[in-house]
Amino acid sequence: MDTLRIEGGQVLRPDMTVERADVLVDRDDGTILDIGTDLDADASETLDADGCLVMPGLVNAHCHVSMTLLRGYADDKELDAWLREDIWPAEAALTADDIRVGAELGLVEMIRSGTTTFADMYFDVPEIVDAVEDAGLRARLGHGSVTIGKDDDDAWDDIEESIEIAREFDGAADGRIRTAVMPHSLTTVGEKYLREAAAEAHEDDIPVHYHANETTDEVDPIVEERDEHPLSYAKDLGMLTERDFIAHGVHVDDEEISLLAESGTGVVHCPASNMKLASGMAPVQDMLDAGVTVGIGTDGAASNNDLDMFDEMRDAAMIGKLAADDASAVAAEDVVRMGTAGSADAIGLPGGALEVGGVADIAVVDLDAPHLTPANDLVSHLAYAARGSDVRHTVCDGQVLMQDREVLTLDESSVMERAREAVTELRDRI
Amino acid sequence: MDTLRIEGGQVLRPDMTVERADVLVDRDDGTILDIGTDLDADASETLDADGCLVMPGLVNAHCHVSMTLLRGYADDKELDAWLREDIWPAEAALTADDIRVGAELGLVEMIRSGTTTFADMYFDVPEIVDAVEDAGLRARLGHGSVTIGKDDDDAWDDIEESIEIAREFDGAADGRIRTAVMPHSLTTVGEKYLREAAAEAHEDDIPVHYHANETTDEVDPIVEERDEHPLSYAKDLGMLTERDFIAHGVHVDDEEISLLAESGTGVVHCPASNMKLASGMAPVQDMLDAGVTVGIGTDGAASNNDLDMFDEMRDAAMIGKLAADDASAVAAEDVVRMGTAGSADAIGLPGGALEVGGVADIAVVDLDAPHLTPANDLVSHLAYAARGSDVRHTVCDGQVLMQDREVLTLDESSVMERAREAVTELRDRI
Repeated sequence: MDTLRIEGGQVLRPDMTVERADVLVDRDDGTILDIGTDLDADASETLDADGCLVMPGLVNAHCHVSMTLLRGYADDKELDAWLREDIWPAEAALTADDIRVGAELGLVEMIRSGTTTFADMYFDVPEIVDAVEDAGLRARLGHGSVTIGKDDDDAWDDIEESIEIAREFDGAADGRIRTAVMPHSLTTVGEKYLREAAAEAHEDDIPVHYHANETTDEVDPIVEERDEHPLSYAKDLGMLTERDFIAHGVHVDDEEISLLAESGTGVVHCPASNMKLASGMAPVQDMLDAGVTVGIGTDGAASNNDLDMFDEMRDAAMIGKLAADDASAVAAEDVVRMGTAGSADAIGLPGGALEVGGVADIAVVDLDAPHLTPANDLVSHLAYAARGSDVRHTVCDGQVLMQDREVLTLDESSVMERAREAVTELRDRI
Repeated sequence: MDTLRIEGGQVLRPDMTVERADVLVDRDDGTILDIGTDLDADASETLDADGCLVMPGLVNAHCHVSMTLLRGYADDKELDAWLREDIWPAEAALTADDIRVGAELGLVEMIRSGTTTFADMYFDVPEIVDAVEDAGLRARLGHGSVTIGKDDDDAWDDIEESIEIAREFDGAADGRIRTAVMPHSLTTVGEKYLREAAAEAHEDDIPVHYHANETTDEVDPIVEERDEHPLSYAKDLGMLTERDFIAHGVHVDDEEISLLAESGTGVVHCPASNMKLASGMAPVQDMLDAGVTVGIGTDGAASNNDLDMFDEMRDAAMIGKLAADDASAVAAEDVVRMGTAGSADAIGLPGGALEVGGVADIAVVDLDAPHLTPANDLVSHLAYAARGSDVRHTVCDGQVLMQDREVLTLDESSVMERAREAVTELRDRI
């Protein structure tokens, strides 16, 4: 058996306790064989975790990874102006090669910061599939469809692309890639298209993922037109089931929180994006109290501006306390759970916890740094003081993606150079 | 002349433009001799800044640096319970040695993350003076006095200690250390003591620094008792002058913002602490619009939980937009200016801008990283994507404190080891 032993570290267990233990991985099937202090000594390979915390790989549950190319492209603008004046014109000029290199840039950043799994909505999805296959991460990918402003034929074409992409690539990369049908949002896709997309997806047991209740501009028109709140509308459309997950959920009322909890629909909280675009503060503690499955996502780098899930967990704790007007709300344990198991559950992928028999998706965090000293509380440190650059090794599906801060699956220098060139050429085209 | 040339980088100018330039430093007097691309080639020493952004050293304008020992000691609690149940009992058990090692740990973290200057309120200040002298930073230090709950003699003793400390150490460490008289806040120090502290301080041209308007619990009792808002009361006490600076300023009304602008009193915004303790959102854009001098501080590590000013600038932009309900508020340029020149102005120390003749307080940020690629906008990257670990060299007063990520003025490993031991012993004493 081909095995990997991560040795000498402290391990974060699913109950958020920390204990000294090694982790033994079966690299053939990518699972965790054992966790303990007296494991079989004859592993094929070892990763040193002395002075480190071994934790589940982080799960970025909502992203537009190729937008990493647009990091810092436009900032400090209202959502509508930002999209119309900057982002949409830039996206219209992106080539398939741009999508590929933008994805690779984002994947390098994710691997560096301990993220092993992500969910992504974008276009030219086959390029992203190829990048994920090479990079070695786990992902749920989909094509984001928009029908508003299109004639009926074009609208159906876009919806059908989302369905076909989801069917074609589900199970790709030896099963590391799963898919979802991804109508962009409840306001940018018309009712009949949403209904059909959900029905087609669920027929094949594929989830539906969409933006919902991000801003009041996404809530008010639905309430005015339909006399019901967006998530009630989503339920009517068949898009609020246990396998589906929404991004944002900022402006949700108590009834919608109940709908989320009853249906088991996942919510992906994107605190940095919600702050940067002044969208508002999601009632995360209320959702947790109601039993909603809440994960965390970075959203695209253009509204963040990084893909560092440690930043995002910290932001979730910070804004969660403000939203609740309560310093005890959205505590350290909550955000670490949301950034790992919560996200994995929300997007319906394995991972998010270190357990025997579970997938070997692992981040090894180097604790030997001034800003993580003294070790008063390691879970607090993960939530409030650690950052992506503290990750030393990243393992996904039993394969080592980064060892001693060197990314092994992608050529980092080449990716950065190609990203710089791509943006220079993009600016010439716009 | 003993000179240092920082060569090959791009330089952030005071107007927030970036240009290719070298920086020539006079190490004898610690000032910048020249900035340009054709500088005298015969420097005594060079620092490589190829692929880097050369920016002013960051200025952490409100800290309790020895509290770095209490990082992660207690989290996710309301301010009052957190102080009474956790922080105050721990602080009561701190020895002078603890204060020293806590300060050194915080100073190592500051140097690592490009902070060259800070303002600090704590006790056992001579220990902090010694640590700053060794570490090589620039600081405005003071003893925080509290009179509430003390008899009159003890209260006067505490106030007099603050005044004496301020007089004794002003100009220490070859002038790198300046001081302030630091009554803790308008609610924890009685009126007569505040009036005397301000008068004594100003007699020697020493500023007064205090917490103000951090929570509604600090505002409401003053309004009830005096029928005026806290900063109006502070003005009556003679504590709202051009040389003084307050920490927090979260709950300030329009009249108080006018008082701050008219008086020239500095405000130190502490966004992470305000979020973590659920204190509220300071109206930073309103203060900037009114012409208030606004800086940024981390507050103590126990309520943050790091001393990384890059985190803090990002937090300031994020929460500033939420507070203004406007994504264009508190923009990237604003937070970078606040974290450098704004902070320096607020605390009345030189620095915060790279200018010929100005002090050579400099951070060199390595841009060659995936999360800072592509270079669409470097000021945006400083505000939204960079983190303390991107700092490669730190220079203060012309002296190199960190070169190629190695801290030169303190023994980092020893500091971390002593901090771990100190906390273990502290826990045994409590």
